[in-house]
Amino acid sequence: MVEQLDFPLSMADKLKAYLPPTSDACTHQETRVWTTLTFATSLDSSLALAPGVRTVLSGPESKAMTHYLRSRHDAILVGVGTAVADNPGLNCRISDSQHHPRPVVLDPNLRWDINSNSKVLQLAAIGSGMAPWVVTSVPMDDISQDKQDLLCSYGGKYIHVPLSSGAFEWTTLLEVLRDKGIRSVMVEGGGQVINSLLAAGSQAVVDGVIVTIAPTWLGGGGVVVCPDRQAPGLPAARLRDVKWLPMGDDVVLCGRLGG
Amino acid sequence: MVEQLDFPLSMADKLKAYLPPTSDACTHQETRVWTTLTFATSLDSSLALAPGVRTVLSGPESKAMTHYLRSRHDAILVGVGTAVADNPGLNCRISDSQHHPRPVVLDPNLRWDINSNSKVLQLAAIGSGMAPWVVTSVPMDDISQDKQDLLCSYGGKYIHVPLSSGAFEWTTLLEVLRDKGIRSVMVEGGGQVINSLLAAGSQAVVDGVIVTIAPTWLGGGGVVVCPDRQAPGLPAARLRDVKWLPMGDDVVLCGRLGG
Repeated sequence: MVEQLDFPLSMADKLKAYLPPTSDACTHQETRVWTTLTFATSLDSSLALAPGVRTVLSGPESKAMTHYLRSRHDAILVGVGTAVADNPGLNCRISDSQHHPRPVVLDPNLRWDINSNSKVLQLAAIGSGMAPWVVTSVPMDDISQDKQDLLCSYGGKYIHVPLSSGAFEWTTLLEVLRDKGIRSVMVEGGGQVINSLLAAGSQAVVDGVIVTIAPTWLGGGGVVVCPDRQAPGLPAARLRDVKWLPMGDDVVLCGRLGG
Repeated sequence: MVEQLDFPLSMADKLKAYLPPTSDACTHQETRVWTTLTFATSLDSSLALAPGVRTVLSGPESKAMTHYLRSRHDAILVGVGTAVADNPGLNCRISDSQHHPRPVVLDPNLRWDINSNSKVLQLAAIGSGMAPWVVTSVPMDDISQDKQDLLCSYGGKYIHVPLSSGAFEWTTLLEVLRDKGIRSVMVEGGGQVINSLLAAGSQAVVDGVIVTIAPTWLGGGGVVVCPDRQAPGLPAARLRDVKWLPMGDDVVLCGRLGG
């Protein structure tokens, strides 16, 4: 039996300004993909105790919020490190939602051994989630037909996107997703993906930021959110249109990037 | 003309449970010193852009709160790094308060060149603050009489406290302060002092924690609050009795340490 979650409407209403417009009301999505950056950290900006260690930081209220956010986006994007470490479901468990976001996994070198035991495929098989799109820099001809067939049989696929200076470029990624019908994406982790989106050159693609902070210090050695400086002596990023929403023992910070 | 600050009573009321009892109502202070840990960080847990660089993080509302906290404690404690970097006033500028806390500066090796240009002494000279107590491991006989006389002429003094394993011990420090009539102290910084108080062995002396978080990522290279782990694989510290108070663009987190 899969646990179902409820997220109060009153709270959902407070997040509205930071989320993609509902499908009836919007022309925005025709040109670009609405991008929400969302994650949970400790007070010392750690996502996890160590690389590859799944760490529960936030409480049940923020967990329900995360699943509400999933109900409000066409896609959910994570890096390969998160896929390998967490074996995540990447589905939506809000009780009154029939929608599941499309998982998009950034896996430049195909490190992720996705197979029939992967949670995301098991959920797709029973209709409780969607199969992932795996974005890779590996040319399609170099991906074994077996692997392609497996992913395809669940409804997923590999997507080839070339790297630029050794990394995916956010504008290119989002164009690829838009061309495949995605109008909104939430970027959930891990550290590398988040830091790259918070970097000066990428902030412009972010439409909303929703960060959960738990009242815990994980201490030295964690996986930290800590983007590069815009310039020496200048802060990396500042949020505007800020709203803080206490939620259980945690706080949820909403804002927008850039000036 | 010195800027005067106002802190709304309604907000002060919300902090009450995390602050020392008012002097009428309390027997607690007879046995030990009420210790409040308070500081402001960025979202990535930085106190400053770099060591020695004074960095304004929080907004005017949280600044007024800091001065309100100073009106509610007998002493305010900082490390020598903060004293050297910031040349701080360490006084209280709440408009309806006549009280100034006693500055206590931890300066094990007497790095701080305190002189008549130091802000803290200039404020003491005009009755807008108190002269500091400088806590050092240097024996009194090794501190020049000139230096001692200077500090003394403003109403301050040097206090010798021996180190234990290369550092001051919090229980010893607080006993020394209690014996000199201090019933409450707020510990304000910097990074080393805060991390040492958040370490597993020291948390028990902390009665209240009040952290301001600004919606900014300072980025790599800052002075970070990030205590040592209690044990490998375990978080460093978790707050209980948590309260989050949005204050301007910042949030103020109140809590208690330990289980």
